[in-house]
Amino acid sequence: MPEIRQNLITREWVIIATERAKRPEEFAQKNRVKKEIPSYVPNCPFCPGNEDKTPGETYRMGGVGKDWKIRVVPNKFAALSREGDCKRIMEGIKRSINGKGIHEVLVETPLHNMTTALLPVEQIRTIVEMYKNRFLAAYQDECVEHVVVFKNHGEGAGTSLEHPHSQLIATPVVPSQVRERMEEAIRYFDDTGECVFCRTLKEELGDGDRIVWEGQSFVAFIPYAALSAFHTWIFPKRHNASFGSITREEMDDLAITLKTVMAKFYYGLDNPDFNYVIRSLSLEENDEECCHWYITIVPRVSKAAGFELGSGMFINTALPEESAKFLRETKVPF
Amino acid sequence: MPEIRQNLITREWVIIATERAKRPEEFAQKNRVKKEIPSYVPNCPFCPGNEDKTPGETYRMGGVGKDWKIRVVPNKFAALSREGDCKRIMEGIKRSINGKGIHEVLVETPLHNMTTALLPVEQIRTIVEMYKNRFLAAYQDECVEHVVVFKNHGEGAGTSLEHPHSQLIATPVVPSQVRERMEEAIRYFDDTGECVFCRTLKEELGDGDRIVWEGQSFVAFIPYAALSAFHTWIFPKRHNASFGSITREEMDDLAITLKTVMAKFYYGLDNPDFNYVIRSLSLEENDEECCHWYITIVPRVSKAAGFELGSGMFINTALPEESAKFLRETKVPF
Repeated sequence: MPEIRQNLITREWVIIATERAKRPEEFAQKNRVKKEIPSYVPNCPFCPGNEDKTPGETYRMGGVGKDWKIRVVPNKFAALSREGDCKRIMEGIKRSINGKGIHEVLVETPLHNMTTALLPVEQIRTIVEMYKNRFLAAYQDECVEHVVVFKNHGEGAGTSLEHPHSQLIATPVVPSQVRERMEEAIRYFDDTGECVFCRTLKEELGDGDRIVWEGQSFVAFIPYAALSAFHTWIFPKRHNASFGSITREEMDDLAITLKTVMAKFYYGLDNPDFNYVIRSLSLEENDEECCHWYITIVPRVSKAAGFELGSGMFINTALPEESAKFLRETKVPF
Repeated sequence: MPEIRQNLITREWVIIATERAKRPEEFAQKNRVKKEIPSYVPNCPFCPGNEDKTPGETYRMGGVGKDWKIRVVPNKFAALSREGDCKRIMEGIKRSINGKGIHEVLVETPLHNMTTALLPVEQIRTIVEMYKNRFLAAYQDECVEHVVVFKNHGEGAGTSLEHPHSQLIATPVVPSQVRERMEEAIRYFDDTGECVFCRTLKEELGDGDRIVWEGQSFVAFIPYAALSAFHTWIFPKRHNASFGSITREEMDDLAITLKTVMAKFYYGLDNPDFNYVIRSLSLEENDEECCHWYITIVPRVSKAAGFELGSGMFINTALPEESAKFLRETKVPF
């Protein structure tokens, strides 16, 4: 019998389609055309030596010239502009605001052919620190209302550039989705006196069925009502509404957790395309007792279609418990 | 300067990314690998003569045996089951309901290699009538709370079966997205005394900039805050909350409108993959003064990535006014 599960945090209903469910290993990207990617590509704007091909660097770690560990630059084809003001227009049904904001590219490594699963933990630690730095810096801009840090890996996940990079987009509006989820979290808090995220983490750890990996400060699990196959969440154990509050020790553990989870995808599902995103409030809102920052990872091993589009509901052809067991048992070589 | 537009109906914010915008013709699927598709495939379960390969037919128009015009059958790999009851489970964070519901496949034509753009208007008229019949029939089931009729065309739109077909999924819950939009529509009505859809249609017709096609009873346009490139809406001119109330004359005009719009995509954008979906309340709710049924069409010519996933906001690299002008001017040969 199929099951329709509701995600208590997002309020989304998901059909867990047992009749059409696939085994975890069937989601592996075995038949995909693979190409050899070199570690250096002369005309790649993110490869070392091409620093002049990107707009003015805003952040770097490492040495001078082409001797960097990571670099941050404005997106050359930015979705939002740093110039101008936040003017609003309201004319009947037309409501708009000038597209002022920040759009940065976060180059994760000098090596063109790397991926999170294969990077050394120290490099991922550096990346996490870069995320924190840029996240906090973006909120300094008085026009900025919300910041999203995310990564697209592979064409199926919407990226055209091969060189490993993440992105940061800071918007002059709070996305409706963020507001709605916050309202739901407040409502849960009002009803129970608890943070719905802390509650979820506690129950997930108690059940154990959907846990992928437990680190010192972070837990990776497949949500009970995962929207799509292998949709994974990484929750910090410590309650905080803002990623900006992450400590040194937590950054160490997040690097290990990210590498472990991404390696489980890499080896278990054969290097699938994926997106991940940090869902967080600003540091100013850190004390918000009903919200909790976290990371969502979506490997692109299934496709949303008309039903999802027309209802906002999802059909998941993987059983969360089976997917989690599969990942939990996937050995990673480090 | 990029612009962030809000869709008054969905409350979604969209970044209209002028800096990275492409010209309308750049969205054409010219470089896609094309394959010749035959009009009949012996082992296709939806081709005539293979009627016994599908579970028991629930509806047909045309003659007997393999002499049908359209057929409706239960989905062999149904996401929801017709059997069982709608039992709810509530255990801490785990909220679920048995996956009882309906999942039908609506075979649109005996010809394996057809597409909406190329079908005769009369056949599309028959398809629309089939939609109405199945839509109304699904709501007869007392477990059913919401019905979605949709079509996935092409692999990029999430379908694995080539033979032209639509689907119907009837769920025992109202999707949260449907509820939220309804609440917003009620709020707009409370504030203004008007249906937000009627208001939108009126302003769109007044502006004219985003109109793709105007028929007798339907108007196709690209919404002011279109989520993605060439995202198109077809609104009935007459206010009704339910597709189930569509009249004979309206069905005639919807067939013409659907064919025209799909042909504009087919010729202008080189047969892109697409999804379309009927967004509607039940016939019982037809008199709801603040809701209005409509059709959404999403050609799959751009990709959502991590930012969209993490914020619910979209980045659209096509200017709605330019896309609409392009489609308006795309000649279709009939």
